[in-house]
Amino acid sequence: MGKPIQTAISPTRAEDYPEWYQQVIKASDLAEKSPVRGCMVIKPWGYALWENIMRTLDGMFKITGVKNAYFPLFIPLSFLEKEAAHVEGFAKECAVVTHHRLEKGPKGELIPAGELTEPLVVRPTSETIIGDSFSKWISSYRDLPVLINQWANVVRWEMRTRLFLRTSEFLWQEGHTAHADKEEAVDRTRLMLDVYARFAEEHLALPVIRGEKSASERFPGAVSTLCIEAMMQDRKALQAGTSHFLGQNFAKASGIRFQSAQETEEFAWTTSWGVSTRMIGGVIMSHGDDDGIILPPKIASSHVVLLPIIRKDDDRRPVMEYTENLARALREKTYGNRQIDVEIDTRDIGGARGWEWIKKGIPLRVEIGPRDIAGNSVFLARRDQSPKEKKSLTREQFIEQIVDILDDIQKNLFDRALEFQKQHTVKIDDKNDFSRFYTPENTEKPEIHGGFALSHWCGEGSCEEMIKEELKVTIRCIPFDAETEAGTCIWCGKPSSKRVIFAKAY
Amino acid sequence: MGKPIQTAISPTRAEDYPEWYQQVIKASDLAEKSPVRGCMVIKPWGYALWENIMRTLDGMFKITGVKNAYFPLFIPLSFLEKEAAHVEGFAKECAVVTHHRLEKGPKGELIPAGELTEPLVVRPTSETIIGDSFSKWISSYRDLPVLINQWANVVRWEMRTRLFLRTSEFLWQEGHTAHADKEEAVDRTRLMLDVYARFAEEHLALPVIRGEKSASERFPGAVSTLCIEAMMQDRKALQAGTSHFLGQNFAKASGIRFQSAQETEEFAWTTSWGVSTRMIGGVIMSHGDDDGIILPPKIASSHVVLLPIIRKDDDRRPVMEYTENLARALREKTYGNRQIDVEIDTRDIGGARGWEWIKKGIPLRVEIGPRDIAGNSVFLARRDQSPKEKKSLTREQFIEQIVDILDDIQKNLFDRALEFQKQHTVKIDDKNDFSRFYTPENTEKPEIHGGFALSHWCGEGSCEEMIKEELKVTIRCIPFDAETEAGTCIWCGKPSSKRVIFAKAY
Repeated sequence: MGKPIQTAISPTRAEDYPEWYQQVIKASDLAEKSPVRGCMVIKPWGYALWENIMRTLDGMFKITGVKNAYFPLFIPLSFLEKEAAHVEGFAKECAVVTHHRLEKGPKGELIPAGELTEPLVVRPTSETIIGDSFSKWISSYRDLPVLINQWANVVRWEMRTRLFLRTSEFLWQEGHTAHADKEEAVDRTRLMLDVYARFAEEHLALPVIRGEKSASERFPGAVSTLCIEAMMQDRKALQAGTSHFLGQNFAKASGIRFQSAQETEEFAWTTSWGVSTRMIGGVIMSHGDDDGIILPPKIASSHVVLLPIIRKDDDRRPVMEYTENLARALREKTYGNRQIDVEIDTRDIGGARGWEWIKKGIPLRVEIGPRDIAGNSVFLARRDQSPKEKKSLTREQFIEQIVDILDDIQKNLFDRALEFQKQHTVKIDDKNDFSRFYTPENTEKPEIHGGFALSHWCGEGSCEEMIKEELKVTIRCIPFDAETEAGTCIWCGKPSSKRVIFAKAY
Repeated sequence: MGKPIQTAISPTRAEDYPEWYQQVIKASDLAEKSPVRGCMVIKPWGYALWENIMRTLDGMFKITGVKNAYFPLFIPLSFLEKEAAHVEGFAKECAVVTHHRLEKGPKGELIPAGELTEPLVVRPTSETIIGDSFSKWISSYRDLPVLINQWANVVRWEMRTRLFLRTSEFLWQEGHTAHADKEEAVDRTRLMLDVYARFAEEHLALPVIRGEKSASERFPGAVSTLCIEAMMQDRKALQAGTSHFLGQNFAKASGIRFQSAQETEEFAWTTSWGVSTRMIGGVIMSHGDDDGIILPPKIASSHVVLLPIIRKDDDRRPVMEYTENLARALREKTYGNRQIDVEIDTRDIGGARGWEWIKKGIPLRVEIGPRDIAGNSVFLARRDQSPKEKKSLTREQFIEQIVDILDDIQKNLFDRALEFQKQHTVKIDDKNDFSRFYTPENTEKPEIHGGFALSHWCGEGSCEEMIKEELKVTIRCIPFDAETEAGTCIWCGKPSSKRVIFAKAY
């Protein structure tokens, strides 16, 4: 028996997946916990990812006619109460502002003062406050559609938090649209879900299932909620984006009325849709390996790091000249919607240097030593391949091929994730098989088991609830591409016409 | 006597400047008040301005080595208290979160529940929370400098608010840096002020005075505060950006220590610097005329609007084809750091259409009718010229010259603002002249008088305070370029070696 292969992250995914996730984030310097309960600090390497995500998504939104705006952080309590299901959904987890200044208390300590007549809630989502603006902006069918997006921070007071996946404050975008007729709103709901799906697959390299949520998983106040679901490497599902058809519920709550072409007064039909920094958690959990994260090149914080190797002082000048020259040539090239980002790491810390960049997940590492200069070459390693698999290319080949290489990594990550998803998506028709699928075989690794079960469901909330209670498994969605097929509910045995996707989920 | 010239905005600047400001914003659709006390809604036309400002400034920051990150919205009370002057400065105007959920009260109404053990303040600025991160990130001189920026919303509970100029919530960027030595931090403070000045002059077309604040106007907790000050058309000053040298005050408060190259333990030297959506208020007040805002082309929400003129149905096809063709050709061109933005307005609302775009301040308006098509020309109007001053250009000339025309508008706006600033900046050496300068001659227009007075000041806070009390005039800054010159304090007559800039201010 050989000795176990050393990995940069301990524990490995197989040993302890949740702890692996925490360690990967720490090792990559993406983010850290803050002293404020449940809030995170997004560090530069993590924020650069978010900047790339924002830039790309923002362009995709704008092509569909959406414009950005900005609405208040605070929502008066009375606004939140306007939609009954909505307030019900958010009341348990919201930060409430009750005072507007601080004052010296009896012992000299600061205490809240200036009590507000109406408490304000820090927005958990903005349907009600944006609805109020829409009610003022819209008076005729000529004012419609209104297509608005906001990039913002939101707060949902979570009791158990996890970096990127579930934090009390997170960054997101929320789109809000209003339409003169129902069909147009329904189409917009689906259009934005398709934008999310395309973005997830083409930019995050995350294969996703598109579908509709069951009633119990709907956004509070929505008529229907569409979603994209991705499979993580512990075979759990991550909801990576949602798009809601709100019917006239919020239009009625906020008074969004318009005069139709027929001169009747109507309520508008609205939608809302959002994705958040949670997607970064999905990228980490889908692509990471036991050496750390692997960033998809399209959204990577940076594309390539140049690692000059200087063993003696005489080497310094020629190696640095060659390195900086190469960096300039690479930066002139474009990958996707931005110029190639190049890091140069001149730190003299030995092998730790290369490993740091592996853990940071940068797509390409390039070593440049005197021998490479003599051969006019570079020594290239790809993050999606084993750390030992390095390859020599001439400088010109590398410059010429870098875009293709990045594309190949992007494609490889997607293909791997898709293969994994397929491998762990199974049709299950027997209740016992279903239960076994979601029961850990190995109690030492209780986290990794199951996957996506394509099973029949009768459509009853009671079955859904029992499954959730017994197995901690939920219906992730009713996939758009589910074929009509006679079957029986996996739980109660009643007739069903469609398979839905079950999974444990984040 | 001719009849008075009609203007699109009523009242005019001369009639009632503060009300003119409100009306201009309303007419331009930049922003509106929200139902949340003191908070504004930034509408798409206004937010596009902010997006352009962010894009440009962000690039300017990054060139100096700054990286973006994101820190929590909430600051624990105990953090704010760490720096005595700091908490003193912000305690009177902060939103305090005291509860983390809502619960049904006795009458079924929602009431705050889940009281926090330590109240949280919604960040008015982030020195203390970012300082906490810095204290963890920094342990050796090798970790320095740390150069961080955050784009974020902040809240300062203002009692009297005004769109863009003073709102309870506003958008800004806040840069925070830490350095191993004092001089480097002082240099960074000045470097970032120079970035702001260059941005204000080259992109906002706002001529600014660079200088240092007197002690009483310093940022709470800073050792020195540098600022840029611009003159508005009511001759008041607007502080358009500040850069603070914080010495070791916040490093001591947050424990930002590092081991020096000499292996001693030292406190870091820190800086912070910020600009906000307030700059948009400055753009409105500097360049606007009695027909509305005039957007500087470099940051304009859009560059040019095409106004097809269709008088009969047969014209529709050729006019729209010509228009869309022209739009395509223009969009291929680049102005500054973005492609030329083109609007096409096909609404059939007569003369109101052109006036709407005048009020929105778009740099160029182009009318296209059958006659223009026949002559292969366009009919062009510039927002910085009288609405009647239109000029015919061939299509090719227009495409070829548009970048130069936009540049000419940009330059013209800057020159006009600089001329205005010079005209209303005067050296005053006599106390009576000084008082008269700041006393309205015409009590019907009490808002417009004064300007920048370059006068001697002894350096005493007491004189400064008396001037503020009697005349509502403050020291805007001690300009960097003030020459040493023997003189006597404008208020007390004691010796002084420098002139400072006095003005009424926003």
